[in-house]
Amino acid sequence: MIHAESAARGDSRALAGLSTGALRAFRDCERAAYEAIKARATPFNLARGKPATEQVALADQLLTAVASAEECWSEDGTDCRNYYGSAQGLIEARRLFASMLGAPPEQVLVGNNSSLALMHDAVVYALLTGVRDGAVPWRDQCRPVRFLCPSPGYDRHFQICEQYGVEMIPVPLTGAGPDMDEVERLVADPSVKGMWCVPKYSNPTGETYSSDTVARLARMRAAEDFRLFWDNAYAVHHLTSTPDELDNVLDACAGAGNPDRALVFGSTSKITFAQAGLGLFATSPANMRWFVSRLSTRTIGPDKLNQLRHARVLRDDAGIAAHMDKQRALLAPKFAAVLDVFESRLGGTGVAGWTRPRGGYFISLDVQDGCAQRVVALAKAANIVMVPAGRTFPYGRDPRDRNIRIAPSFPPAQEVRAAVDALATCILLAASEGLLADRGINE
Amino acid sequence: MIHAESAARGDSRALAGLSTGALRAFRDCERAAYEAIKARATPFNLARGKPATEQVALADQLLTAVASAEECWSEDGTDCRNYYGSAQGLIEARRLFASMLGAPPEQVLVGNNSSLALMHDAVVYALLTGVRDGAVPWRDQCRPVRFLCPSPGYDRHFQICEQYGVEMIPVPLTGAGPDMDEVERLVADPSVKGMWCVPKYSNPTGETYSSDTVARLARMRAAEDFRLFWDNAYAVHHLTSTPDELDNVLDACAGAGNPDRALVFGSTSKITFAQAGLGLFATSPANMRWFVSRLSTRTIGPDKLNQLRHARVLRDDAGIAAHMDKQRALLAPKFAAVLDVFESRLGGTGVAGWTRPRGGYFISLDVQDGCAQRVVALAKAANIVMVPAGRTFPYGRDPRDRNIRIAPSFPPAQEVRAAVDALATCILLAASEGLLADRGINE
Repeated sequence: MIHAESAARGDSRALAGLSTGALRAFRDCERAAYEAIKARATPFNLARGKPATEQVALADQLLTAVASAEECWSEDGTDCRNYYGSAQGLIEARRLFASMLGAPPEQVLVGNNSSLALMHDAVVYALLTGVRDGAVPWRDQCRPVRFLCPSPGYDRHFQICEQYGVEMIPVPLTGAGPDMDEVERLVADPSVKGMWCVPKYSNPTGETYSSDTVARLARMRAAEDFRLFWDNAYAVHHLTSTPDELDNVLDACAGAGNPDRALVFGSTSKITFAQAGLGLFATSPANMRWFVSRLSTRTIGPDKLNQLRHARVLRDDAGIAAHMDKQRALLAPKFAAVLDVFESRLGGTGVAGWTRPRGGYFISLDVQDGCAQRVVALAKAANIVMVPAGRTFPYGRDPRDRNIRIAPSFPPAQEVRAAVDALATCILLAASEGLLADRGINE
Repeated sequence: MIHAESAARGDSRALAGLSTGALRAFRDCERAAYEAIKARATPFNLARGKPATEQVALADQLLTAVASAEECWSEDGTDCRNYYGSAQGLIEARRLFASMLGAPPEQVLVGNNSSLALMHDAVVYALLTGVRDGAVPWRDQCRPVRFLCPSPGYDRHFQICEQYGVEMIPVPLTGAGPDMDEVERLVADPSVKGMWCVPKYSNPTGETYSSDTVARLARMRAAEDFRLFWDNAYAVHHLTSTPDELDNVLDACAGAGNPDRALVFGSTSKITFAQAGLGLFATSPANMRWFVSRLSTRTIGPDKLNQLRHARVLRDDAGIAAHMDKQRALLAPKFAAVLDVFESRLGGTGVAGWTRPRGGYFISLDVQDGCAQRVVALAKAANIVMVPAGRTFPYGRDPRDRNIRIAPSFPPAQEVRAAVDALATCILLAASEGLLADRGINE
């Protein structure tokens, strides 16, 4: 949920309250600042949620965790340099992530380096073979198949739907998850087969689904083969010492009589090495059999050596928590820098609102309606790479053209500060130009 | 192609030529031998093409090839511990496998640990999105979609078809590849969209497709969106010092005016670490754009650290060749042991024929028609695990119930010898029982 900073304060700095002359002076001032930024030509990148080099370096022990033939053997006596029967992954890796995913190890699958790939494959299996043996494939039941998409959300989720012609229906977020009245209304349509959820420290809004939201998602009336794609990518990615709590969706669904409703995904991409970590999946016993049977047709199994490395370095829940504390020490100052600059440059202006996330990788920024594309274009011309405006919505269409996702993790904190300061100039320039245009002044 | 040992020699050992009394004595002798084997109870496994522990150990340098933060950087300056844009893999890895796959590095993709997964995904993309942007998905053109399946072949290829309802049409093999008259006749059906090929040291028959076969596959009239699934899994897996030569299918297809016909797959699963190696893919520039665009929806990219390890340890074609010479030194004696036992126990009996592969991982054994299931059952009861009879055919149905795939790579040579000797007893027992039954003698 965007905190409307200015609205909350009734600040005298509100741009809309300025006289035309003052607004023009303000714009000229921002324009001069913007030209100076362009002349500077230092490139910045706030586009992708990419860990910083010092973050991935926290996991460098992985590089030597399995360094000899003797160390290649898993606890069940498997030589991880060779073929091995189960596509579900090593038991020590499944045990390691069980409580993070909220399921016993038998209901956990550890894959290769991408949880997105596991989500993609689950969509494909359901489209082509149905959600269980003997079920009618989604694609043979309805054209189009439909998914609910809480928005703004994760563009790569939406891209999977787009690739396979799954129609996306945006649903607004409330700060405690999706608007559940709207979800309950929409999900009554039996062609709605899935819903993308990033339930904790959501991408990009940072919100965590409330207990009430989780309970309603678990019990709502939906098609029997409707599935929640529960991408809990930021389960342990806290930015404060008082983590948000998220209810266990598998338990909630089982309790509501819909035991097979939720497919839970997780990842170590932002815990250990990005793209060289482990993709994770947990679900009901029946769904796990379904998924493993299909995955076993696709591959003999995952790279077990990388699973061994993770099990030996992260060890257990305490090991993961200690590791994430180190991540937080690196990340939190960068988020603080963004919020600090936003507050000092934009607070009270009434032309921008932003989230104050307690975890995850993003700050969600809303500029004035109709201004996001202009802000991103101004930033681009000044060598600041942002995710294209609209990307956080299905089909890349932000109906109000106002949302911009800020990803401050990769650059050093000082660079983040400079980049966001420059971005603030772009926002103020676009806003003052827009307000002047509203008053008929375009030069 | 099975060499009919006995037919070629007109040997006096031919079982069918024995008098009923002599045949009965022979059977009793084999039955006693079989009971002794059962009593022995040493378990043997000749089922899967699994490298021996000393084979995977040849690649142990991989375990320490990237052991420090400094070593994590690829030649284009990418930190392989972090996200990186291209799903096509590192350039040093693509260059390493270019000549093995017969394509320039720009037309090579290096993935994660499974080439089977790449084949599966190519089938899925074509079924759901067509073979290029704007093409009609296979699944929307015809129900069922059909594939040609040279048989006996690789069961996991067939399983992909079965999972997605792709109808399989078996085609006989000739010793120089599939029966091309039959292929040309069948492929005229526009619902035939694909064909599985293991063109070199084929699984399980060991044959290599001739130049004529490759040329005819490249130029035959087929649906515009027909694709050869060219699983060149054994490209460098020679068992002799005079390797088979396989024509370049990408060149052949391009020369015949069908540049996008072939999808070439390869793997290091049987070069370095099984299931912890690299899956490989090469194709035309247009097909590569098609595949990468869809793969990029599925995943941000492969595990690049494992690609770095392989590039540094295998280095170049000479490095691969030297490594495979060491593999051959371990494998060739096991194949020799099988052939030696078969020759001494079964030669001239007229009840079995087998291949003498010059590379690859398998020996293909044909017993008397209608006897394969019986032989495998006898073996199982004597603690010898074989692949289920029929598994090398589509739908697990061997029309003549005669083919058995022998995989001698995993056990030590002495064990291979003992296991195959026991298997020979099962074959002779089943055959003599069968011949006696033909003469009305069932006790």
